[in-house]
Parts: sequence; C-alpha cells; structure tokens
Amino acid sequence: MTNFCGTSEITGARFSIYPMSDRFVDIILSALEKVDTSKVWMETDDVSTCVRGRSEHVFDVVKAIFLESSKNGDHVVLQATFSNGCPGDSAGDVYLSENSDRLNEENSLQIKQDVAVQFALYPMGIPTYMNVIMDQCKLAQDQGTFTKGVHYASRLDGDANKVFNTLEDAFQGAHDSDSTHIVMTVAMSANSPSKKGDK
Amino acid sequence: MTNFCGTSEITGARFSIYPMSDRFVDIILSALEKVDTSKVWMETDDVSTCVRGRSEHVFDVVKAIFLESSKNGDHVVLQATFSNGCPGDSAGDVYLSENSDRLNEENSLQIKQDVAVQFALYPMGIPTYMNVIMDQCKLAQDQGTFTKGVHYASRLDGDANKVFNTLEDAFQGAHDSDSTHIVMTVAMSANSPSKKGDK
Repeated sequence: MTNFCGTSEITGARFSIYPMSDRFVDIILSALEKVDTSKVWMETDDVSTCVRGRSEHVFDVVKAIFLESSKNGDHVVLQATFSNGCPGDSAGDVYLSENSDRLNEENSLQIKQDVAVQFALYPMGIPTYMNVIMDQCKLAQDQGTFTKGVHYASRLDGDANKVFNTLEDAFQGAHDSDSTHIVMTVAMSANSPSKKGDK
Repeated sequence: MTNFCGTSEITGARFSIYPMSDRFVDIILSALEKVDTSKVWMETDDVSTCVRGRSEHVFDVVKAIFLESSKNGDHVVLQATFSNGCPGDSAGDVYLSENSDRLNEENSLQIKQDVAVQFALYPMGIPTYMNVIMDQCKLAQDQGTFTKGVHYASRLDGDANKVFNTLEDAFQGAHDSDSTHIVMTVAMSANSPSKKGDK
C-alpha cells in the first residue's frame, strides 16, 4: 500500500458514482463529459475513479461529477474517500502547480440538489484523533449542515453545495491538526425514494 | 461522533448495496428477506444500513446480503465500513452473547460470484499504523486474492467467498495489532460491464 499513496501536499479522492438505474453507464459518461478535469490527475478503473491534485480541485471535480450525475432526478449515490498525507509516491505532483481557480464551481453553483450524507474522518498516526473528529463535527454544527451522529459516522443534510463546503472545511480542519495523514469517507445520496431519516 | 460508536469487543459495519438497475428496491428487499439477521443488531436509514454484533456475524450478514443481491447477474456494488474499538456507547452489546455459529454461511458458500474489490485499513491511535496495513496486505498476498496496490487502497480479485475470507482475516489481523480502533473500508463490485482492470 505504501507505494501507491500520495505525498506532501497532494490531496486525492477515490470515488464512485452509483446511479440506481438501467441507464447507469450513460448517466456517468454524460456527467464526465460536462466536467473540466484538466487541473487534476485522474484515472478510472472498473471499481472506482481516482483524482489527485490540489485539494480545492479534487473537491471541485468530485462535486461537479456528482451534481451532473444527479441533476436529472435519478437516484444517485456518491461514495468517496478523500486522503491527504498518505506516505508514499508522488505521481501527480505536477498538478500541484495549478492555480487555485476552480474550473467547475460556477456551473456547480447553478445546480440545486438536496442530499443526505454520512461522513467520517480518520486522522491517522496520533493518539488524540477523537479530538480532531469532534472539532470538525462542531464545525459542521456551526455551519448548519450537521443533523446528527449515527454509528460510525456523522450525518449532514441540505443543499449539495452547502454540504460540500462543510466536507471540504472539515477535511481541511483535520488536515490542520496534529495528524499528518487524514482520511475522510463520504456517502452522499440524492433523489432517494426513501424519506430522510426513514428506518 | 463519540456518542454513536461501538465499545469493547463489538464489531460493526455501516454498508450500502447499490444495484445499478431500475429494480434496485426489489433487488435489495428480496436479498434482505433471504438473510438471517437474528444474531446482529441492525438498523437501516435512507443512506445505509448498520449491523453490529460479534465480528463473525457482522461479516456473515454483510456477505450474505451482497451475494443474494448480486447472484442474478445484476451489476451490484457493496460499499462497507467495518469498525471495531470506536470509543463510545454500547448499544447492541447484548448481541455479543450469541454463539459463533454463522447463520448464513451454508447458503453463501453455494453462491459462486466473481468480484473486484478495493479495500483500505485505518488503524487508529498509533504512530506505526503503516506497519499494520502492510502486514495485512502481505496476508492478502499469501491468500492469493491480492492483485495490486492502487492509490489509497489495495485490490483483491476472485470468488466472493474467498475474498471475504481475506477481508475478515485482514480486519482481525489489524484488530490484533497495537491499534485499539480499527476501520476497514470495502468497495466490492460484481457483474460490472467494465472489464477487470479497465482504464
């Protein structure tokens, strides 16, 4: 595993888009066509897609692909693992020289999409990791997107753009802690036929 | 988050089944009907399902639900986060008194299903977490299911029952390390129209 992780300041996300539809291939490919991925290193295999680069572009691209996939009303779920500081190689480091202008933000802000999210932070290598997690849950509460804690995750609800802000801020907040290797997992659901909070 | 994690020896998994099909509701509900979940605490909301109990029953139930969902040839993905040792509450601890006989193993072993998996281990609270990860990757190599490392994950391929053995052994191996809080994420894909290793 060590040979295939990021280094220094590169952030990465390994993610998948799951449209619960017979047209899943079309939905994913159409979304990809509409998103500008030129500021990130990107590779797709049969299980997931990996994007790497400056943190803001990784979030920009993942958000844009999810919004483009879900905007037509299909039940679509994003599963993503964001990572920064994994000891290892440096493939993709050239993308760190891009400037910070987000290529897809303007389009993404036009898309209104309610989402339900369960996310978890894993700050590695330090004994005080629970403090880092609690600090970021408090941040989510302050931003108004936090709904409740559930087993093994925290729940966010609301507009996708707002929720992505919280996720990016929580990731950055954990990154600024004593932990040098941060992992954040996200499950984001749009247009589910189940009602929010259904059991 | 602290209020909603497991304690002591209880293991949990938060997971979702994603059938890429218009019949996704039927596929999930039919699978659930065929699986005996009486030895685990279980709760489903609109984003995911949480099961908690003895580790062997958590793996038994997640595997069975995935196999029942995918056995008819639909493209189905399992996303799961397994956890043990999260500091917090003790809801579900009563299930730890169940015996270790797996209720669904006999049925699961009848189902032959090729899968592609990307998994990652996050041993929390210790500086030597990378050693724990590498030890378990070596175990996967010894079992013949390990295919390669990818960014942020390790890849397993093969029969679902064999691959689940590796996942359970890796989780247990990490649990037996110095880390007291182990998280393992799994993305498992069956019947994908993409060829293995496609890029």
